[in-house]
Amino acid sequence: MNIHAIREQFPILHQQVNGHELVYLDSAASSQKPRSVIDAMRDYYEHSHANVHRGVHTLGSRATDAYEGARAKVATFLNAKDIREIVFTRGATAAINLVASSYARANCQPGDEIVLTAAEHHANLIPWQQVAKATGAILKFIPLQPDGTFTLEDAAATMSSKTKIVTVSHMSNVLGNVNPIKELVQLAHEHGAVIVVDGAQSAPHHKVDVVQLDVDFFVLAGHKMCGPTGIGVLYGKQALLAHMEPVEFGGDMIEFVDLHDATWNEAPYRFEAGTPIIAEAIGLGAAIDFLESIGMEEINKYVTQLGNYAYERLSEIDGLTIYGPTKNRSALVTFNLDEVHPHDVATVLDTYGIAVRAGHHCCQPLMRYFDVSSTARASFYLYNTEAEVDRLVDGLIQTKEFFGHAIR
Amino acid sequence: MNIHAIREQFPILHQQVNGHELVYLDSAASSQKPRSVIDAMRDYYEHSHANVHRGVHTLGSRATDAYEGARAKVATFLNAKDIREIVFTRGATAAINLVASSYARANCQPGDEIVLTAAEHHANLIPWQQVAKATGAILKFIPLQPDGTFTLEDAAATMSSKTKIVTVSHMSNVLGNVNPIKELVQLAHEHGAVIVVDGAQSAPHHKVDVVQLDVDFFVLAGHKMCGPTGIGVLYGKQALLAHMEPVEFGGDMIEFVDLHDATWNEAPYRFEAGTPIIAEAIGLGAAIDFLESIGMEEINKYVTQLGNYAYERLSEIDGLTIYGPTKNRSALVTFNLDEVHPHDVATVLDTYGIAVRAGHHCCQPLMRYFDVSSTARASFYLYNTEAEVDRLVDGLIQTKEFFGHAIR
Repeated sequence: MNIHAIREQFPILHQQVNGHELVYLDSAASSQKPRSVIDAMRDYYEHSHANVHRGVHTLGSRATDAYEGARAKVATFLNAKDIREIVFTRGATAAINLVASSYARANCQPGDEIVLTAAEHHANLIPWQQVAKATGAILKFIPLQPDGTFTLEDAAATMSSKTKIVTVSHMSNVLGNVNPIKELVQLAHEHGAVIVVDGAQSAPHHKVDVVQLDVDFFVLAGHKMCGPTGIGVLYGKQALLAHMEPVEFGGDMIEFVDLHDATWNEAPYRFEAGTPIIAEAIGLGAAIDFLESIGMEEINKYVTQLGNYAYERLSEIDGLTIYGPTKNRSALVTFNLDEVHPHDVATVLDTYGIAVRAGHHCCQPLMRYFDVSSTARASFYLYNTEAEVDRLVDGLIQTKEFFGHAIR
Repeated sequence: MNIHAIREQFPILHQQVNGHELVYLDSAASSQKPRSVIDAMRDYYEHSHANVHRGVHTLGSRATDAYEGARAKVATFLNAKDIREIVFTRGATAAINLVASSYARANCQPGDEIVLTAAEHHANLIPWQQVAKATGAILKFIPLQPDGTFTLEDAAATMSSKTKIVTVSHMSNVLGNVNPIKELVQLAHEHGAVIVVDGAQSAPHHKVDVVQLDVDFFVLAGHKMCGPTGIGVLYGKQALLAHMEPVEFGGDMIEFVDLHDATWNEAPYRFEAGTPIIAEAIGLGAAIDFLESIGMEEINKYVTQLGNYAYERLSEIDGLTIYGPTKNRSALVTFNLDEVHPHDVATVLDTYGIAVRAGHHCCQPLMRYFDVSSTARASFYLYNTEAEVDRLVDGLIQTKEFFGHAIR
């Protein structure tokens, strides 16, 4: 991987922040965008924009081709069998909510069980709490190990014949562990349950093959994988999507409309009410082109190696606690530094031009599991370097000294 | 208004389509974007992108300021009292669905009435059909005049003490009439109902003052008013939004999250689950800056005049039927030409580089009211000219001759 050539593609990285060259270590929250993605959207607006699907004029056809072409790119990226299995949503959160509001509410009865973990992002927890309240289904949590991961044995023991849905993140946004999706899918299917996989963190880093994994639903967030904001994807098996009711209603998702009733267009269109998220889908398509031009295997290898390097270097810092597993880690490190509040850590690092996140990372239950209110998190992507990790380490040592002196 | 200077701002307009200079007459479906909007989003991605609200680093603060700054621009644009009355949504359709799914489902009882018209866009009809099915409320339709408009007398007669919600378009996307919102608001409030106004067509053309109109809810679509795709707005009175339950769940919309329950952030954040539509909100803010730099009064005057000119010129064409009122028209003309199918009209016009829409315009009940399956529609915006209207007229005459000969 030619890291120099890759970094050249990201205009935002080449700037001074607080007198230092920017070190952006917050890609798990949102990745930066290569020039090709920004250009694809600009080019669309400058040459091809119109509303899609309903136009018979040239711009309408161009826009429709570009929008549906983006859907085809996503389908190929995930190795979906059919482009109709790809629903464009406002984001990964909206995609999970769609499964919860449509599939789950229609298929869960009182006493049915939804299996998940306490390590889920709020987006993969609260929608299921609401399903439980609405249907009488019960949330069952796979017990966590001390490092926040879980075993397949515990996952199996948490499932039963009452399990209707299993929902887990592919890759944790706090701990960096990658969950064994293929095995979890098998377990879920053995129990007659469908599985929902929150791929917001994994899709940017891994080759995801929905057929090989045999997942029922998979969601991703465009903005975390070099794409624009405002776009996400729900992959769903056609046999499932075809029987799901829409949850938003309006233009483009209908077949026949009378004063008091309406019938629905086929999936995925029935789930895309109103003018679609056109330019953003095109931007996501360009992001996929960019990632595939490098290769997902290459990206995964690079970022995993970088994550491991960061883990090793940060482990050397006295008084720094790293959360999560010691092995099979991905490209982020979540930590706390002595008694320094993580917001203060992030604030001091920012004065050195280093951007890390501090907070509960949308995982309040997991924070409580570790008995902390918040942590700092450095997350890496294909444009980061070992030299940037070194700057983080130097910054943390200086932060430690600063607060050490301040406390004394 | 300096039309030449305005047209210069829209790169897409200066291209050849099928050997002719493009005449884009489909802005009611989606408007084109000025350079300043495209540039604002590019600039954001090149200098300021990060996730918002949760970051303590410099880019996170910049992104948050830009995103919340866009919210403030929308609030000022609509003359809202408080920026907390502005919710960013995926689009106007999503905004109406939010009111229907949250406010209406919580506040409608069996036998309650929802008052609307058969001329509504599907986005302002089907969500209410679903509310009626879920709650037992009844849809009551204000009778239409032969031209598709309605009288205030009929509106008043359709309301009763059982009316809980009145929902109408501000400006029709088919007929071009502007409804008397202020009077309808008074009627709704006299009956103790709240009013929802679909402003997708009006916000691009009119100064909208939510305080002066006293509307309870108002929705707009960014992409129809020079903004990007993927963004819309729900304005709601704070007293109403504050008591509404969210309908999507995830990060950023919560206050406290436990394993089995969660509490919500205040409005509008509770309605914006997940990573917000950041760049698109910023693009919408730039669109508002652009529109306001010209002035909404100026724009309204210009496009209304253009619409009237188009109405007069098209009225001269023998065999052309125009739908909608003869007076108080806005900037669109919906029509049919003899027995030529509107798709054929649009297809032939496209060969002359003229983009008009053909279809049911997401208004199937209104099409049936006029006893047609579809119509053609030419819609105008601030970048269109009388010379373009003339080209439309010439194109229609040629279309007529073509099919006249073809039929003979």
